[in-house]
Amino acid sequence: MNGDFWRRSNMNQRNISYEFSNIKSLRVQRIRRMGDMLVLLSLQLFLLIMFVEFSKYYPDADASDLHTSSHPVFGGFDPNLNTYRKYNSMFQDIHVMVFLGFGFLMAFLKKYGYSSIGFNFFLAAILVQWAILCRGFFHLSNLKIPISVESLVEADIAVASVLISMGVLLGQTTLLQLIIMGIIEIAVYQCNFYVGDEILKIADAGASIFVHTFGAYFGLAASFALSRFKRKNDIESDKSLESSNYTSDLFAMIGTIFLWIYWPSFNSAELSGDDQHRAIINTYLSLAASCATAFAFSAILTPDTKFDMVHVQNSTLAGGVAIGASVNMMIQPYGAIFLGMLAGALSVIGYNYITPWIDRNLHIHDTCGVHNLHGMPGVLAALVSAILAAIATESQYHTGLYDIFPARAPTIPSFNQDVYRHIQGDGRTAMQQAGYQILALIMTVVVAIVTGFLTGISNKTLCFHYSFL
Amino acid sequence: MNGDFWRRSNMNQRNISYEFSNIKSLRVQRIRRMGDMLVLLSLQLFLLIMFVEFSKYYPDADASDLHTSSHPVFGGFDPNLNTYRKYNSMFQDIHVMVFLGFGFLMAFLKKYGYSSIGFNFFLAAILVQWAILCRGFFHLSNLKIPISVESLVEADIAVASVLISMGVLLGQTTLLQLIIMGIIEIAVYQCNFYVGDEILKIADAGASIFVHTFGAYFGLAASFALSRFKRKNDIESDKSLESSNYTSDLFAMIGTIFLWIYWPSFNSAELSGDDQHRAIINTYLSLAASCATAFAFSAILTPDTKFDMVHVQNSTLAGGVAIGASVNMMIQPYGAIFLGMLAGALSVIGYNYITPWIDRNLHIHDTCGVHNLHGMPGVLAALVSAILAAIATESQYHTGLYDIFPARAPTIPSFNQDVYRHIQGDGRTAMQQAGYQILALIMTVVVAIVTGFLTGISNKTLCFHYSFL
Amino acid sequence: MNGDFWRRSNMNQRNISYEFSNIKSLRVQRIRRMGDMLVLLSLQLFLLIMFVEFSKYYPDADASDLHTSSHPVFGGFDPNLNTYRKYNSMFQDIHVMVFLGFGFLMAFLKKYGYSSIGFNFFLAAILVQWAILCRGFFHLSNLKIPISVESLVEADIAVASVLISMGVLLGQTTLLQLIIMGIIEIAVYQCNFYVGDEILKIADAGASIFVHTFGAYFGLAASFALSRFKRKNDIESDKSLESSNYTSDLFAMIGTIFLWIYWPSFNSAELSGDDQHRAIINTYLSLAASCATAFAFSAILTPDTKFDMVHVQNSTLAGGVAIGASVNMMIQPYGAIFLGMLAGALSVIGYNYITPWIDRNLHIHDTCGVHNLHGMPGVLAALVSAILAAIATESQYHTGLYDIFPARAPTIPSFNQDVYRHIQGDGRTAMQQAGYQILALIMTVVVAIVTGFLTGISNKTLCFHYSFL
Repeated sequence: MNGDFWRRSNMNQRNISYEFSNIKSLRVQRIRRMGDMLVLLSLQLFLLIMFVEFSKYYPDADASDLHTSSHPVFGGFDPNLNTYRKYNSMFQDIHVMVFLGFGFLMAFLKKYGYSSIGFNFFLAAILVQWAILCRGFFHLSNLKIPISVESLVEADIAVASVLISMGVLLGQTTLLQLIIMGIIEIAVYQCNFYVGDEILKIADAGASIFVHTFGAYFGLAASFALSRFKRKNDIESDKSLESSNYTSDLFAMIGTIFLWIYWPSFNSAELSGDDQHRAIINTYLSLAASCATAFAFSAILTPDTKFDMVHVQNSTLAGGVAIGASVNMMIQPYGAIFLGMLAGALSVIGYNYITPWIDRNLHIHDTCGVHNLHGMPGVLAALVSAILAAIATESQYHTGLYDIFPARAPTIPSFNQDVYRHIQGDGRTAMQQAGYQILALIMTVVVAIVTGFLTGISNKTLCFHYSFL
Repeated sequence: MNGDFWRRSNMNQRNISYEFSNIKSLRVQRIRRMGDMLVLLSLQLFLLIMFVEFSKYYPDADASDLHTSSHPVFGGFDPNLNTYRKYNSMFQDIHVMVFLGFGFLMAFLKKYGYSSIGFNFFLAAILVQWAILCRGFFHLSNLKIPISVESLVEADIAVASVLISMGVLLGQTTLLQLIIMGIIEIAVYQCNFYVGDEILKIADAGASIFVHTFGAYFGLAASFALSRFKRKNDIESDKSLESSNYTSDLFAMIGTIFLWIYWPSFNSAELSGDDQHRAIINTYLSLAASCATAFAFSAILTPDTKFDMVHVQNSTLAGGVAIGASVNMMIQPYGAIFLGMLAGALSVIGYNYITPWIDRNLHIHDTCGVHNLHGMPGVLAALVSAILAAIATESQYHTGLYDIFPARAPTIPSFNQDVYRHIQGDGRTAMQQAGYQILALIMTVVVAIVTGFLTGISNKTLCFHYSFL
Repeated sequence: MNGDFWRRSNMNQRNISYEFSNIKSLRVQRIRRMGDMLVLLSLQLFLLIMFVEFSKYYPDADASDLHTSSHPVFGGFDPNLNTYRKYNSMFQDIHVMVFLGFGFLMAFLKKYGYSSIGFNFFLAAILVQWAILCRGFFHLSNLKIPISVESLVEADIAVASVLISMGVLLGQTTLLQLIIMGIIEIAVYQCNFYVGDEILKIADAGASIFVHTFGAYFGLAASFALSRFKRKNDIESDKSLESSNYTSDLFAMIGTIFLWIYWPSFNSAELSGDDQHRAIINTYLSLAASCATAFAFSAILTPDTKFDMVHVQNSTLAGGVAIGASVNMMIQPYGAIFLGMLAGALSVIGYNYITPWIDRNLHIHDTCGVHNLHGMPGVLAALVSAILAAIATESQYHTGLYDIFPARAPTIPSFNQDVYRHIQGDGRTAMQQAGYQILALIMTVVVAIVTGFLTGISNKTLCFHYSFL
């Protein structure tokens, strides 16, 4: 059948997985394979046991919950309970981005087509289960994790951070190393997200800080750690494998365009009301502007040719990252366009000057140029969100201000006529909120770099690098 | 223009369509082509006439129905009438699965890329029209078939069973044989579905029994019948054409991933309330677990290589089939994960051991390994649904029980306070319902095998095998 | 990195962009590149300034608008204000069609894979911003353009007309020429749309007249103008580059199938109530019939082979265009099927006989055969809409008649009991409305041809053909 081709295509990859295959007998390989499979199966089995112990349906999905029986028309029927209806079409859009978009975006390497798409598929499938658990531990109800469509959306978004880190490391690690890294990264991600979202109470509706910035710097730090252990010629041989061809670049465009198309859903899925509407408009405009600007900068910075497919595949998306943290704020349509232009230009400049500099001087190898698509635009997003937080006034946002920045609500609970509910917050000022936005950025970058570096080190020192896969 | 390539690519296919092209003159070929086209056109014309005679808009889509005028705000406006709104985003998801997912999944054969996608497209487009008619004949209102978006969803789902059978036969038949087979299969499908759904009253929300099991065994039986007529060397030459290459395997991954992504919509489109919410969660978890388990088993069972692309493309999806019949039951999140693991493992084992055994001993050639993705997981789904039906209690489901198993409602009509409507059923016990689930499985397998075999025989004995296409 | 391949693949394209590269020094090229980039950047900057001056959020997306605060439950909450919810899933579907569907559909040329997808991406991203502005100038409120999700949907649809024209010109122009053409075309499109929609008040829910017919004839006229300036051997060398290969044809099928799948959303996005439901059904049936008929006609008209991939990629979609203008009328299910059959057959005949004739006799080169997919089926759509308008009666449509044909409402404002609002129109008769439908078709074709020709001429005479890109 067609399994041969996987073998053939990955023949080269084995060279870079730090195995000395030629001096090892087939028997040793078989033992290793056996070991690897047992690790993978144990992991899935562990997840199953955790779900047995901790999972239950969210009341809205539970038949035994009387309030949500399927067809009640009167008495107790609350349309807002039907969260799945609200989430479903956006959930599917995000699902496309995570499982198809990221996978095909990384398929531009002609030698790693199967690996990019296959590893992305496997990694995401196993880690969404882990992400549901990690997130759930912060919100246990009677020692159980209530699972709803919202949990699935949040799991997809959490896994995106690992797939971003994978973009840095593609071709530099074995699959098993990626999985171990993903397990750790998801756990750290959920802690960082919990602190940022529920303790620091910052606004990051499109997850530019918690997902994009975090994933990028985690991956870069892990790559830095891994490069400590590499011999010079290994690194060179890695890079020689990193070329694309005409067909692989077209496959990558499938990933790019689906990410570009569904990004408005990614940035607005967890919002509602005018926040959600505004988020869709801002993301759309920012992406359009970053696409146009990336093309223009690519034309000038690529000598002797027209456009560089690397810019077309990546920098066109930078606007989606850069708008993420302020996507539901009153940035105005022109603000979104300006931010998209800035991000597109920054990203192309990053690919042309910053990534080669980092590679040469810091010896951090960034296979997909994640720093230019997720790293720098993510930091930009955080800075912009701080500026907008600093100028946000009650007269501009009315009570919507407390939806976006809950900590700015007054400390004394008051019944609000407009939204017919009690509002209570920490009484923060605009400048304080801006400070917290910056604080969350610093925390995220520091946590990502420290834990990413440690994960990279442990991956090298533990036995996982002897794995076959 | 680019039509040449179709010719070139299918040059080989002609060899396997039981034509002795080399001894036939061009004139004979032209007559045959003429005949084929007349058959295709007559078929479309026949469908047109049937629609003239029998079709009308469902009241909700009919301007002449006063209750559903477009903007009534008061008096008679019932949001539940807007069925198209409820269905639309899920309808589009299923549309992607049927027209893109199935077609590209079969594109892994490097010699049949056009045929897989093109035949899938043509077959599905002509058969959805036929499926609307066949389904409608069971629900005539004033001798007319009322067509709504729900009809379109049901037609898409019905056609999936033919596309599954096509997966068994790909490369073994001519296009015209596939169409004739599809016409018969849709008619039989609708009868079997009617008996199972409205007479036996079984639960099969994700259509694992009616679509997946039915389509797989129908196709396998037809393949068995066709192999009776083949000479030994024909079969060998067929198989030699069945190889993939790097690019064709990447195209197939587009199909796999879109099927994987939109499966929650497939399994939940016709449900509502907490049933629908639960179905989305169960399908998501089952698919994630089957994907991870399929990779793990692929690693151990593929000697000398890492993963087998056949497993990655197919077995990762087995969880969606296996959960289908019990998708709206209280299987619990861990139950969905366990079932997905079971299905993923079963499917990989099937590809490695069972399909070769069937091929060798029963002489049934299964081109895409449909038995491992749709056949066995479909049977597993039916068995699991029987177990869950046997343990379903009123205290766990409340009145939701009668939505899932309408026959379990008491025979005496009673007004239910929770759902504000009268409920009446057949007063079945839990064990009786379990028995009916098994009965529907046995009926479906027997009907599929008998009619599939007869269709295969008739395809060989009638003149269709003289067709050019 | 992988930018080389863009250069290599477009090496040929440069030959046809009327540059005499071999006699020009690198210095001249660098100056030109600089100039081009400045044009592109100035354009994006100009758009930014226009947005600063004219854009604001639509009230429903504006936090400062009290009526639309995010969680008001009582008092003033109007679910109909949540336009983004209504539009969102269809908006994403249309987004897929415009950015992915059109781009990949044009990827069938093996030499222009990057150009088709990349230019489509760039052009669409820059022009959606321009389309929002042009459309907005007709609906200023306090000298500002209120931007909602509806604006985004309308911008996507407007840009489709430019992408259709690009299909005619692909490989015949430089990127900069396409952008200049697009800027002009969008402005003309919005004027023509305004006159047709708000002055002539015609029905064209699926934009068959305003988008498909307009885009096709605009492009054909521009191609005619460009061919005046070409030397004979240039044209021949252009054509020699227009071949597809096996892989490029499979990429094109991705575009075809996504267009086919999401067309029901394209044709129904701006409708509501039973109009929208009917539009989904009609589009689905028309597309199914045109797909089946295109395959049948392709089989008979393609000598010595089975099917022509050009027909499979394009003519299968003709039903979506042909139903567009009458998609919300009571055409009946069989009417939709009949129209789809007609369009499919017409389109295949066009590819086989009409396009070669036009090329030979009128010297209009139509790279993608746009005349057969958008031109003729668009004219057919307009004629059918006139016939249906002529036979539309109040007894068949009730008050829905005034939603579809607002000018047919009586001139004296009357309070309508069914829809609880005042209705006022121009008191047109059915035959008058039919006449206006034809008038709008004639206006659109004339405007498209005249402005397209002038655009082509100006593109040749202005300095843009010295551009590098």
